[in-house]
Amino acid sequence: MATILDGKALAAEIDKNTMLEVQKLSDRGITPGLVVILVGHDEASQLYVRNKERRAKKMGFHSVIRNLPETITETELIQIVQKYNTDPTINAILVQLPLPAHINDFHVTMAISPQKDADGFHPLNLGKLILNQANQTPVACTPSGIMEFFKAYNIPLDGKRAVVIGRSAIVGKPMAALLVNANATVTVAHSHTTNLSELTRKADILVVAVGIAHFIKADDVKPGAVVIDVGMDRDVQHKLVGDVDFKEVEKKAAYITPVPRGVGPMTITMLMAQTVSLTKWSSEQDG
Amino acid sequence: MATILDGKALAAEIDKNTMLEVQKLSDRGITPGLVVILVGHDEASQLYVRNKERRAKKMGFHSVIRNLPETITETELIQIVQKYNTDPTINAILVQLPLPAHINDFHVTMAISPQKDADGFHPLNLGKLILNQANQTPVACTPSGIMEFFKAYNIPLDGKRAVVIGRSAIVGKPMAALLVNANATVTVAHSHTTNLSELTRKADILVVAVGIAHFIKADDVKPGAVVIDVGMDRDVQHKLVGDVDFKEVEKKAAYITPVPRGVGPMTITMLMAQTVSLTKWSSEQDG
Repeated sequence: MATILDGKALAAEIDKNTMLEVQKLSDRGITPGLVVILVGHDEASQLYVRNKERRAKKMGFHSVIRNLPETITETELIQIVQKYNTDPTINAILVQLPLPAHINDFHVTMAISPQKDADGFHPLNLGKLILNQANQTPVACTPSGIMEFFKAYNIPLDGKRAVVIGRSAIVGKPMAALLVNANATVTVAHSHTTNLSELTRKADILVVAVGIAHFIKADDVKPGAVVIDVGMDRDVQHKLVGDVDFKEVEKKAAYITPVPRGVGPMTITMLMAQTVSLTKWSSEQDG
Repeated sequence: MATILDGKALAAEIDKNTMLEVQKLSDRGITPGLVVILVGHDEASQLYVRNKERRAKKMGFHSVIRNLPETITETELIQIVQKYNTDPTINAILVQLPLPAHINDFHVTMAISPQKDADGFHPLNLGKLILNQANQTPVACTPSGIMEFFKAYNIPLDGKRAVVIGRSAIVGKPMAALLVNANATVTVAHSHTTNLSELTRKADILVVAVGIAHFIKADDVKPGAVVIDVGMDRDVQHKLVGDVDFKEVEKKAAYITPVPRGVGPMTITMLMAQTVSLTKWSSEQDG
């Protein structure tokens, strides 16, 4: 039976450290400021944004939610982002994705100041990560949360075979970069990959971000592997499940993240930690 | 026997197109300007720089070579780069690497305007490439030259297994990104990789950038593979050879680049083409 990587417990531990950092900033008269920009009325997005707001308030942040109409133009949205780029009370800007079809996600991401890029999605920040030069640089929260699991559970990465399924800007690409930087041998697989199972069966570290319920079965996994499930899917009973068939794979893996209480809680925790880091870095530059 | 990917012939063909573009710019009164900055007296670097200058002049560019003393400080070098960032006669800036040990390559790369980044090494440009948003964006010349081989010889990449050995900012990392963007399943291997041969034997596309003469033998290659050799090594007789044991691997591969006359000529050709592209893009923005 695999060791369960407990995202809820690890997130709580990291939150404690983050709150200590908030206290230290507060002693210097500084309050981290996070703005979350939400366009339209997507239900899932609204839920995520509310969760972020609740956490930000609990952390003692200056928390702003900007709920913008579905009909806003790209230019108007970019102007609002630019306003926050120069707003001294705001240290971190997050634009909730996906945006309506008439707005180009990449244009909006490019408009966020790299120094206030809460999600670490700006290409300058991603480029620095790829070059292993991500000092004082925000990094995408889901992959950096996954790295915290490896650290907390002393899972070695150097020289290990890692397979990342999915090549999104949010998970797959930064995840691959972090693993290469940690000296793993990394394969990026995706929807065009053939013989996927042959690949995954060789993986010491398997990160799955495909968005299909129970996509990875026990047969696809190497005995003793570390299996990280980024999926947040619904099964036929509409129950929240992951991309990995947890019940079966758990018997074969050495470590596995559950869904829920695995990667999910780590993402928002890393967002909070990163907001504090951005605040600290900016205060050091101002000083 | 493999088809030899003829870098010299392909480079000549691309050069012809580039010269047509130079002519079109010239008709509009525009001359592409390339500055190559060389610090110190490294012999290999001096040779590369002289070659670049010769080619730039042949192309009809405004070509500037700045030979700076080994003792220059990082700050002084960055100030010189910044001067060219705002010099309207210069469209492309190349700082010949490696720099002396007291200067941080990354700091200097960061100082180059992304719009004049001849080598495509700036993290903003690399980030855009990773995100498959490299429209009007310079890309590292060696990997983009390799992509020209695939195009010219109609080598399919979609769904193919690609293995890139080497994770440098100059070759491995941008190469992996280009292959992922072309829908290949890409593995990045490097000095910490274990069981490398097991990996390479599965590769439909094998790109080798390790800098060790004849590192890849016939046993390491899948029958029918496409083998791209980025090496420029010296064998025991001090003869120029590649990272691939060409004589043996040629019998097994479907396509192979020789050394010399393979990847080498493509790199400088892509640098010339990119200088012209940067000039065009900047003229479009000015207009």
